[in-house]
Formats: sequence, C-alpha cells, structure tokens
Amino acid sequence: MSSQSSTQALGPTPEHFFRSINAYQLTRALKGALDLDVFTAIAEGNTTAKALAESRQASERGMRILCDYLAVMGFLTKAGDDYGLTPDSAMFLDRRLPTYVGDSVEFLLSPIFEQAFSGVAAAVRKGGTVISDDGTMSSDNPVWVRFARAMQPLSFGMAQMITGLVKLDPDKKAKALDIAASHGMYGLAFARQYPKLEVVAVDWANVLEVGRENAEKFGLADRWRALPGSAFDVSFGAGYDLILIPNFFHHFDPPTNEKLMRKIHAALNEGGRAITVEFVPDEGRAAPPPAVAFALTMLATTAAGDAYTFAEYEKMFAAAGFSRSELIQPPMGIEQVIVSYK
Amino acid sequence: MSSQSSTQALGPTPEHFFRSINAYQLTRALKGALDLDVFTAIAEGNTTAKALAESRQASERGMRILCDYLAVMGFLTKAGDDYGLTPDSAMFLDRRLPTYVGDSVEFLLSPIFEQAFSGVAAAVRKGGTVISDDGTMSSDNPVWVRFARAMQPLSFGMAQMITGLVKLDPDKKAKALDIAASHGMYGLAFARQYPKLEVVAVDWANVLEVGRENAEKFGLADRWRALPGSAFDVSFGAGYDLILIPNFFHHFDPPTNEKLMRKIHAALNEGGRAITVEFVPDEGRAAPPPAVAFALTMLATTAAGDAYTFAEYEKMFAAAGFSRSELIQPPMGIEQVIVSYK
Repeated sequence: MSSQSSTQALGPTPEHFFRSINAYQLTRALKGALDLDVFTAIAEGNTTAKALAESRQASERGMRILCDYLAVMGFLTKAGDDYGLTPDSAMFLDRRLPTYVGDSVEFLLSPIFEQAFSGVAAAVRKGGTVISDDGTMSSDNPVWVRFARAMQPLSFGMAQMITGLVKLDPDKKAKALDIAASHGMYGLAFARQYPKLEVVAVDWANVLEVGRENAEKFGLADRWRALPGSAFDVSFGAGYDLILIPNFFHHFDPPTNEKLMRKIHAALNEGGRAITVEFVPDEGRAAPPPAVAFALTMLATTAAGDAYTFAEYEKMFAAAGFSRSELIQPPMGIEQVIVSYK
Repeated sequence: MSSQSSTQALGPTPEHFFRSINAYQLTRALKGALDLDVFTAIAEGNTTAKALAESRQASERGMRILCDYLAVMGFLTKAGDDYGLTPDSAMFLDRRLPTYVGDSVEFLLSPIFEQAFSGVAAAVRKGGTVISDDGTMSSDNPVWVRFARAMQPLSFGMAQMITGLVKLDPDKKAKALDIAASHGMYGLAFARQYPKLEVVAVDWANVLEVGRENAEKFGLADRWRALPGSAFDVSFGAGYDLILIPNFFHHFDPPTNEKLMRKIHAALNEGGRAITVEFVPDEGRAAPPPAVAFALTMLATTAAGDAYTFAEYEKMFAAAGFSRSELIQPPMGIEQVIVSYK
C-alpha cells in the first residue's frame, strides 16, 4: 500500500512539492525532539511512547506521534511499539556522548537565519541579504559566539581529519595562524598533534573567549595566543608556516578574498601553506548538493558571499601570489579543503 | 567528488541531521521561487539566470544561486548555464496551467500552522495543540477559507479519482451530502458525473461561498445547495445515497467521530454509502510516510486529532452502525479512501 511506489509509475505528481513546502515541519519536529531529549531517552532504554512520556514528562499520545514522525523521517527505527535509534542518531543525537551535535541548533536556528530565510524572494531581487547592509558580517555580530559554542563538536571531527591531510615536521618549531578561529578547533587540532607548534588565533574578542576556554581544556594555553579583531584590519605579523582559513571566504566577494589572501601570502614563510576549508561546488555548480545549496545561505545572510568553485578560488589565490592550489575531498564531511603553496 | 557516496561507506554521519535541521530553508526557497514565479518564467523560455533575472526583475546573482539550489533539490534540471523544469515542476508549478498547485502555500504556510509548529515540544508535552483550546477547529476559523481557495486545484484531481472508485446508477435520481465540503470539489465531481444527483454541502457559511462559486463555475448551481453550520450541529435531513467526509475525521477524537458517523448513518438510505477520504497509516503506523507524518500536523494544530489506522476507523464506524467498511488505495495521491456500507 505504498503510495510512493504506486504513483511513481503514473507520471508527474505534486508530492515532491508538498513534501518540500512542508519541510519546515521536519526542522520543527527535530527541534522539538531535541528539546525533549527524546534520542537520549531512547538510548537510556525508554523505547515505548509510554516509557518516553514518563521519562521526559510528556504525554504518551504526543510522544507516539512525534516518534512515528521521526521514524518515517529516518531518525528512529520502529518495531511493534518499540522505537530504536538509527546508527546516525545513536552516535550524534545522544546527549551523553561527546559526539552529540544537537547543540548546533543554537546556531543553525538562530533568529537571524530564520529572519534571513523568511525573505528569499527579496534577497534574490537584491542579490544579497536584506536583513541589514552586512548581514551576519556586521562587526561583532553575536551570532558568531553562538557559532563558536554550538558548532565545536562538529568542527572537532573535521579539524582532526585535516591534520591527517596536511602534515608538518614534528621536530621543527613552527607557527600557525588560525583566521576566523571561532572555537579554535582547527588551530588546536594542529597544536595537539605538533608539540612544537605555536598558534595565533584571529577573531572577534568575544568569540575568542570560547577559543581560549578550549585551549585551556586541551592544556594548550601556553602555545595558543588570541589576536582579537577583524582579519581584514589586525596585523598578522609574519613567520607563519601554516595559515588556516576555515569557513571564512564564503562570506565575501572575490576582490575582498583576494586582498585577504594577499595579506596571508605576505605573512607566510617561503614554502608555507594556506589551508582553506570551504563548501566548494563542482565547476558546473550542480554537485555536491550541500556545497551548491550552501550558496543560498550566503545569499540570504551576507551582502556578497557565495559558495565558490575551485577555479574561482584558484584565480583569487593565484592573483594573491600563491604559486599553486590543490583541492582535496576529505574522506568524511560535507566540506572540501584547498591547500595553497607560497 | 560526491561527499554523499564517500561518507556512506564510513559509518554514521551527522549529515542527515544537518540536512533535516536546515529543512526549513527548502520551504523558504520554494516559497521564494513561487513569489518570483521562477517556474513559469522558465516554462516561458527564460532558461538562464540572466534571462530569468530580466524577466522577473531580480538580480542575476540571486537567480543563479536560487536556481542552483532548486536544481540540487530536484525541482529544476541544469545543463551548462541552462535551467529546465522537471516533469513534476512543468505540470504543477507553471502558473499558466490549471494544474498549478503553488497557491496551496496560502494555506500550507498560514501563520497559524507556522505558529503551531514553532512549539512542537510543548504540543508533545500537552498531547495536543497549544495555540488555543481548539486550534484550527475553533468556530469559523478563517484558515478554512484559505484552505478552500488554496487547495482546490489539488482536491479536484483527488475528487475526480474518487468518482472512478465509487459508482452510482446514472439513471436514478440520487442525493449526496458533502460534509466539510470546503471548495465543494468532492460533491461537485459526483454532480458533474451524474446529472440526476443533487448535492447538499455542509461547512461554515464563509467557506461555502467558495463552494458556491465553484458550483456556478461548473454550471451546477441548480443541483448544489449550501447547508451552513457545524457538521455536529446542523440537521442533515435524510434520504442520502452517498455521504462524503473528505479530510474531516482526522481533526477529532474517536468518540466525536463515532457520534458524527452515527448521525451520518441515520441520514443515509438503506444501502447508502459513507465515503471517507483520509490519511490512513498502516496498522503499525510505520508507513506510508505521508499518512504517518500527517499525525504530527494534527497534534500541533488540534486538541485531539490524529491519523487513524483502518482498524481504528472500522471500530468507530461499526460502533456507529455501519455493517462493513472497506479501505481503498487510490492509484494516485497520498490519501486513502474508506467506503462504509449502511
């Protein structure tokens, strides 16, 4: 009695449209499940609607309806009256685990994003954000403190992976600059790996407090230094072997990025490398879906940001003085890495 | 370079979670595309971002980013710089066609729904809507006028299909009652098919104005009569051969439905049939996805509504006096049909 299989044979249907126009309900249902801590409750052994309701002070009827919804949306399994966690949910939505990513909603569902997406047509007409002149790029925007706190569990994995892709000489003293360092995870991942590495982290002062907490947590405070301010304005100094630019260029237009990359080039030692972590769509901008889709977030929330292709980055970076750039698809995650050589 | 295929092999990932927590962006992007009439513009031959921007007074950059997004989400095709419509989009999102369903957003994205879904956790705790005591079921709620206007293109197809599943004797005078008739499409579909059929339509007076417009449009005003008021309060009269109950029972609890079905039973002739159009999940409430998911809308927007299984309907209808009920899966659409025999 699957309506999907029976309709697919009969030509066009409006079902994909209706599922998609109601997609906001999936956001809200997931948010509700996180608010109620349903996934942790199931991991703790509360597998029926009745047990879940008792465990989380909710109604049995409400729990049954929510969990059935989560099951058909691929977040839970269902066998008889028993709900279970899918492998993804077991690893990432159980609040007791360090891999829990549920706190990311504090950033991803920030009022400023919801506001920006409430007027997609207006942003398309204008060609940029309509929430303010600079959108989320306004000076000291508090959304970046949210980002730093909410996204660090996710960034930790990505940062670890990049240390596997970009190697330093472990016996040599070295210096890294972490631009738009946020929670500091990228620079700290390298500092953990290389005991002779010193890291300088650039970001707004209020954001760098989160980075400093993490540096202390990792016992790396003596090799981690905050350099507060805008990456476009502060003086980087010189003598860096590695400069990390995670998730930053997508907020700006190509001339702005080229100018920053020239400043980065000047701060690097000969043979030094700039490491860009980004959403990089294929040249035709038809894949991969997360990278292509990300451009809409930039349209809605920034004046001139974008998801740039590798050819576009190569051009900006070459103009900034880099001899060569290389695109790497990491084995996991939805982002790409560009290594640029001075 | 597909990140999806490369990650699936490596065990759990948080990607389904992130895609889903951002699902509201898909709702907003589609709404933006409808506001800008992008699909019609492509059907008219504006296939590049530049042509689309000129045709719909928007920026080329904004159009490129929006259309790339719509392409990776399955609403457009992309070849080089040219966008095209998928078969579904060509039939249902081109405003010039009678099959256009885009106006449904006036109902589906009504503020009352967005409000209801903004507090899923609260609804799960309470076991029903938190927007008011009766939610969308409050007397004369204006959302049902929106429904009547916005959903009629979609209902027309479903109603037509039901006339193929439920046959009357074309040579005999007959009388049908259309409960919660809304736009009137279900009763009118039968009246178009059977020239000797008279239809009585029950709904709020302001909603029935939409039904009357449609009866006049179809040239059926002489065989269509409005019976304004609540289906629970107005007197139906008697002598009906067919009573239609499309998308109504899901708003109420089983005792309320049983009581209404008893009133329906009393109004039917011997041998008469009650036709229920509903989202009917399988007994395990694990499929089909649209029917299971629909229960969450009822939790969020009504005091006690639900997506009932066929066994639950059978029980209510048997208790109301019906000798037999039969579940039919129509060849198209996401709803099911129950035929109950007096």
